[in-house]
Amino acid sequence: MRSQPRSRFSLSTISAAMLLAGYIAAPGAWAQSVVASASSPGNVLNVEVRIDPAGKLGYDIKRKGKEVIGLSRLGFNLANAYKLDGGFSVRAARTSDHDDTWEQPWGERRFVRNHYRELRVELEQNELEQKEQGKRALAVVFRIYDDGVGFRYEFPDQPQLRDVAITDELTEFAVAQPATAWWIPAAELPGLEEEVRKAPLKEIGTANTPLTLRLEDGTHVALHEAALVDYASMWVRKVEGQKLRAQLAPSSLGPAVVRHGAFSTPWRTLQIADNAAGLYMSDLILNLNEPNKLGDVSWVHPSKFVGVWWSMHLQQTTWNAGPTHGATTANTKRYIDFAAKNGFRGVLVEGWNQGWESNWGHGGADFSFTKSYPDFDLPALSSYAQSKGVRLIGHHETGANVAAYERQMDEAYKLYARVGVDSVKSGYVHEAGTMLFPGAAGQPPHYGNYDSQEGVRHFQKAVTEAARYRIAVDTHEPVKDTGLRRTYPNWLSREGARGVEYNAWGNPVNAVDHEAKLVFTRMLSGPMDYTPGVLSLVGAEGKTFNSTQAKQLANFVVIYSPIVMAADLPENYMKYPAAFKFIRDVPTDWADTRVLNGEVGEYATIARKDRTSDDWYLGAVTDGQARTLALPLGFLDAGKTYTAEIYRDGDQADYRSAHRFDLVTETRTVTAKDTLQLKLAPGGGQAIRFTPKR
Amino acid sequence: MRSQPRSRFSLSTISAAMLLAGYIAAPGAWAQSVVASASSPGNVLNVEVRIDPAGKLGYDIKRKGKEVIGLSRLGFNLANAYKLDGGFSVRAARTSDHDDTWEQPWGERRFVRNHYRELRVELEQNELEQKEQGKRALAVVFRIYDDGVGFRYEFPDQPQLRDVAITDELTEFAVAQPATAWWIPAAELPGLEEEVRKAPLKEIGTANTPLTLRLEDGTHVALHEAALVDYASMWVRKVEGQKLRAQLAPSSLGPAVVRHGAFSTPWRTLQIADNAAGLYMSDLILNLNEPNKLGDVSWVHPSKFVGVWWSMHLQQTTWNAGPTHGATTANTKRYIDFAAKNGFRGVLVEGWNQGWESNWGHGGADFSFTKSYPDFDLPALSSYAQSKGVRLIGHHETGANVAAYERQMDEAYKLYARVGVDSVKSGYVHEAGTMLFPGAAGQPPHYGNYDSQEGVRHFQKAVTEAARYRIAVDTHEPVKDTGLRRTYPNWLSREGARGVEYNAWGNPVNAVDHEAKLVFTRMLSGPMDYTPGVLSLVGAEGKTFNSTQAKQLANFVVIYSPIVMAADLPENYMKYPAAFKFIRDVPTDWADTRVLNGEVGEYATIARKDRTSDDWYLGAVTDGQARTLALPLGFLDAGKTYTAEIYRDGDQADYRSAHRFDLVTETRTVTAKDTLQLKLAPGGGQAIRFTPKR
Repeated sequence: MRSQPRSRFSLSTISAAMLLAGYIAAPGAWAQSVVASASSPGNVLNVEVRIDPAGKLGYDIKRKGKEVIGLSRLGFNLANAYKLDGGFSVRAARTSDHDDTWEQPWGERRFVRNHYRELRVELEQNELEQKEQGKRALAVVFRIYDDGVGFRYEFPDQPQLRDVAITDELTEFAVAQPATAWWIPAAELPGLEEEVRKAPLKEIGTANTPLTLRLEDGTHVALHEAALVDYASMWVRKVEGQKLRAQLAPSSLGPAVVRHGAFSTPWRTLQIADNAAGLYMSDLILNLNEPNKLGDVSWVHPSKFVGVWWSMHLQQTTWNAGPTHGATTANTKRYIDFAAKNGFRGVLVEGWNQGWESNWGHGGADFSFTKSYPDFDLPALSSYAQSKGVRLIGHHETGANVAAYERQMDEAYKLYARVGVDSVKSGYVHEAGTMLFPGAAGQPPHYGNYDSQEGVRHFQKAVTEAARYRIAVDTHEPVKDTGLRRTYPNWLSREGARGVEYNAWGNPVNAVDHEAKLVFTRMLSGPMDYTPGVLSLVGAEGKTFNSTQAKQLANFVVIYSPIVMAADLPENYMKYPAAFKFIRDVPTDWADTRVLNGEVGEYATIARKDRTSDDWYLGAVTDGQARTLALPLGFLDAGKTYTAEIYRDGDQADYRSAHRFDLVTETRTVTAKDTLQLKLAPGGGQAIRFTPKR
Repeated sequence: MRSQPRSRFSLSTISAAMLLAGYIAAPGAWAQSVVASASSPGNVLNVEVRIDPAGKLGYDIKRKGKEVIGLSRLGFNLANAYKLDGGFSVRAARTSDHDDTWEQPWGERRFVRNHYRELRVELEQNELEQKEQGKRALAVVFRIYDDGVGFRYEFPDQPQLRDVAITDELTEFAVAQPATAWWIPAAELPGLEEEVRKAPLKEIGTANTPLTLRLEDGTHVALHEAALVDYASMWVRKVEGQKLRAQLAPSSLGPAVVRHGAFSTPWRTLQIADNAAGLYMSDLILNLNEPNKLGDVSWVHPSKFVGVWWSMHLQQTTWNAGPTHGATTANTKRYIDFAAKNGFRGVLVEGWNQGWESNWGHGGADFSFTKSYPDFDLPALSSYAQSKGVRLIGHHETGANVAAYERQMDEAYKLYARVGVDSVKSGYVHEAGTMLFPGAAGQPPHYGNYDSQEGVRHFQKAVTEAARYRIAVDTHEPVKDTGLRRTYPNWLSREGARGVEYNAWGNPVNAVDHEAKLVFTRMLSGPMDYTPGVLSLVGAEGKTFNSTQAKQLANFVVIYSPIVMAADLPENYMKYPAAFKFIRDVPTDWADTRVLNGEVGEYATIARKDRTSDDWYLGAVTDGQARTLALPLGFLDAGKTYTAEIYRDGDQADYRSAHRFDLVTETRTVTAKDTLQLKLAPGGGQAIRFTPKR
């Protein structure tokens, strides 16, 4: 046997094997060198970008010097070309600072500061084995804020990658400290309408986002994405331990994402704060979105509404026509009158259109979006409503049959525009578990995932098409919110979580800690059409809510949406005039928002300043535990004296008994120097309106 | 507001919502009725099939009356048609008993008993929303053995589902007791060559199979599949808690599985036993495979081999031509002589063919499977070998470039057949991380997952095409083994786990408990070309094995393969003649196999009876812990006296020191009535040959 010194040929071949070995044997043991790094403007967060000897790309994030995200991989597997993984070197890395303030046409605050340092890393991938393609370029861009980081990949136009067909995004998030997670399983029915689970991070499966974490040292992290456009939604798959990886929602047509020419991926976002409240206070998601593309959006109206809706969930009326049809001209008129009398701009009517006869319209195939039932006079009702300062809210339940909906969408919007319906609630009820998409030219429709690139495209198209007709959209059973209301401010709200309807028929109904979870999970992504305010606290067949009445009021402040439904039956509101006053008063558009305290799944207190007056509003909610929260009123304007109209749990209030109705209203005089003790009952809450005294 | 009684229309629409609510709100709380059930012939395992009010299908498995798999879902999401989920009713359910014994041409035992009760449930799915398609038929078939259950779906040919495009298989495995899992992450590089992890089941991510579990009460379960043909490989995704779900390996072309006309899925298998040894003793996987389709396979030869291979992994020689080329005529002749002298039938030669110059042949594009390097005379060497009773073993390293390989495969097999090479080791080294598949007519090649339906098809095609030329195949970097060696007995072996090569350059090398894990995980799926017997216990650059010499010998018995490589350099074997005698003696084809004891990741003892003599062979391995295993010899033939040639760890042997070489050989006389005390050192083992005295 020979034992000659290694030749250069042997080295190169063995090096390949060794590199392969090094790569496949212990990816966690990469000795990677930092090729670029940058910190947030206030030096709170630091990002490092690393490349190992095999040219593999990674990043990590520290907060105040302590690792939050450990070394995590970046890259892609492609179908149509060699993978974008390994073989990278840095061509250029530069930082730039950005600090401006922009104004939202509506939102939780009027002015938003956008202050970050950008780290742009331009990469070159050598040919490796795909000799014919030559080097390829890719950029990774980090925007580093004091309260979070967003990063995305930018694909330039290049002949070697004119088309990009992504099978896997290899982006990892290696959480560096033991963490507790609040998560929702992705790829399960009913999509985002799962109960929020709390579990050690190492025990989660595949999660949708936002994914909220509390690290061992108290740091809170929310993992999500911003500006999800023409790309598959990102789920997060637990690989092992606390290493997570992006899992792109699959496509029935082939690779998860197919793009042509230059493009950027959505921003992968990590909001990072000392506590839960700090997560909510971050404007990272909105800041990473493109500015308003629609121009004048004065036709978009934050407001409250009521509707022919809860009565169906109570099984008192039907969607389909018949002896107990909800959407009749007479019944709708009564709601319009009630709305007008009580200052609600909108009246939603479900079941107005033909096709509800069977099983969600035979998977949506039967729904007409232009033909009313004979007992519903759309034009007359719309005129009647407008004459009283009210607008009908349209309803497009699609049954997840995107193929059928897209065929009618233009005519449907035309109809609404013609009769003066300037907003629509859409629905994609998942009886099929997946959506039915139109096929490409000549192809039959096919089922696919609503989080897929196809689904994402459709949801956005429904909004941009509506904008052509100056119609605003409230999407139910949607893809997750990623802040696109900044770019399309007619995208008013979404469902995308378990709403109050689950208290009508859910099995189980929403848990007592549901709102305290939602605030720091779902609500980090954007507004929710939660449909609060069911003062009767009862669903179908006597199901009781896990809530006191005071919490129903608090929800109007705590669960943000520019459009908020006062969901209960009018006759129930008329039973509780004292409580109802708060609902009549509370606005839905804000100059500012302060999250004053909170713990995920336990409690939360939010104060908001009205955009069109000097009033402040406050809401506080708790879980099953009674709490007294000391609340300094420092958010109030200095130098003013306020009348505080307080709606609180009575001393015996408790969500588990008839005392859930014990609501006490009282008035106090306060200033910014005062501290209130918010006494919350089990399953309770508190709502306060602060009005400056003249 | 009205409060009229519900009409039948309102009931149907509300029922839809309620059903939807019932389904989506708490799938775990289904009140399902048992529609069919059956037990194994010995009444050990029981399977129940259930359907809930919404027509959702589920099953559960009990062992001796105790739940092992709790209520678990069955069904599919499709791309081209409404999902096969919900709306089911039973058209027919019948049981039948089967008990026969069949003979393997080679294997761990000669005769295999196939004793089960089959439960066939024929289902009808009503139209639900897809009114135009009419009812659809589907069958679920369970084969219930005393030591395990296999079930599969059968799709009949029906106009409503002429094509079946599966996006998701919804099969669940809800493990009913807290369990420990030994698992390998799926969808990670390097595929099956990951270290086996041990973790609480609730902490795993997405696993490949076999997935081995130990339940709280000691019951062992191995989850896998049998007869994986023309379908995507099944990974197992943790949903939450201990609920697992089938995760079909994705396709870059669209839905994970596309089939036309009638077909059956692979069998989803659960081997269930009181202990680890019981898992191994089950023949479930083989029994569920189709019988031999090849007829006479006398041209398939279980045997041992040596090869021009380890010297490359030690970096002493190169695959590519050059001054230290391993695969030269002269060097190969030396191996042939060594093989002939020591009774090895085969000589593997890697690096014989053109294309090794760069980076695994530029992703396999450069490899020729018909043109040797000029310094390797294939026909002459093959003749020389045959003249000495030895055969060359061919080598087809593809670099995972299936497109390039399939173009040459026929000519490559023709060449080997012509020169008398009757077996080939193939490789699919994953530099790309994914395989490069040929495109459909006119389409360019595309990258995709080797576990995909495409990958599965290719691996099988390579074997069936080889059979046409009477060539046997040993697949490295393969898809998992699912027992197809029964149907195609020229599919001799696979890699599909971390083999001994990792001790040459792995980072880290194989752990001391690697074999004790392999036996009860990887080895449950089928034979492995482990390449044991490196008596020098050292890899490249002085890396030491986590093993004593005795364990290297034990591996020949403990890690089954019909073809076994004595991997070390010949000069090293000549240094250890006493140990080498065992390697020269040990056969690789068996009349019977008994797993005498074992715990996953701790230790294992296996005894096997030679197929062509009355000898028994035994191997025992341990992890880092020294053990003395009491071994009753009751497996020996009664009434015979045996000479036991024992190869054991010396008293100071230890894998962590130079004493790893302390091997003691001794001879004893034993009968079936005796008990041996097997004293295993840390990282040690023992090998014994039992020869009947005349």
